[in-house]
Amino acid sequence: MSLDLPQVFRHHVFCCAQQRPPGHPRGSCAAKNAHPLWEQLGQRIQAKGLLDVGMAWTGCLGFCSAGPLMVVYPEGLWYRPETPEDIDEIVDSHLVNNTPVERLVMVLTR
Amino acid sequence: MSLDLPQVFRHHVFCCAQQRPPGHPRGSCAAKNAHPLWEQLGQRIQAKGLLDVGMAWTGCLGFCSAGPLMVVYPEGLWYRPETPEDIDEIVDSHLVNNTPVERLVMVLTR
Repeated sequence: MSLDLPQVFRHHVFCCAQQRPPGHPRGSCAAKNAHPLWEQLGQRIQAKGLLDVGMAWTGCLGFCSAGPLMVVYPEGLWYRPETPEDIDEIVDSHLVNNTPVERLVMVLTR
Repeated sequence: MSLDLPQVFRHHVFCCAQQRPPGHPRGSCAAKNAHPLWEQLGQRIQAKGLLDVGMAWTGCLGFCSAGPLMVVYPEGLWYRPETPEDIDEIVDSHLVNNTPVERLVMVLTR
């Protein structure tokens, strides 16, 4: 890269909101309870006052069988949270203290 | 970061698809012709065979007045393309050759 710009966000979180119909062969993150988890994530980021953390909902991130999926940049860390407690831990450990939650990391291989 | 994982994507592109009604005070990327640009971006990534480049559509990225906006990670570079030619240049220069298109970079300050 020939540019060296300051990062807009210390962490930028992207959360898959893809919905597919019941029985669809690929499944989807929304079919795996993703939406309530991301709602909670946004609320907790706001409650913690993390102005240097961005969050966006996305369409399909491409690894549907591994969902519900979120990815945090610039680290490029993929998480598969399953419970509200998982969300809280990701916020408090990773987004607040820069310490990834290793037990929730998805190691995606292509 | 205590984890050192390989990146899933060499570049991961996130494109704002937010739509707001005509006359909405915040505007939106979709109201600024974003959708055809992102459609073309996806087609060109596929045509170039860039298997190590990911692309996802997103909800609001938070800087509506600067749209249409896309951000490329892990670099954290924000672009505001306006024409099909801009899209082609971003793909060919940045995504293929790792050379950012400086004239299209948005330097966002918060």
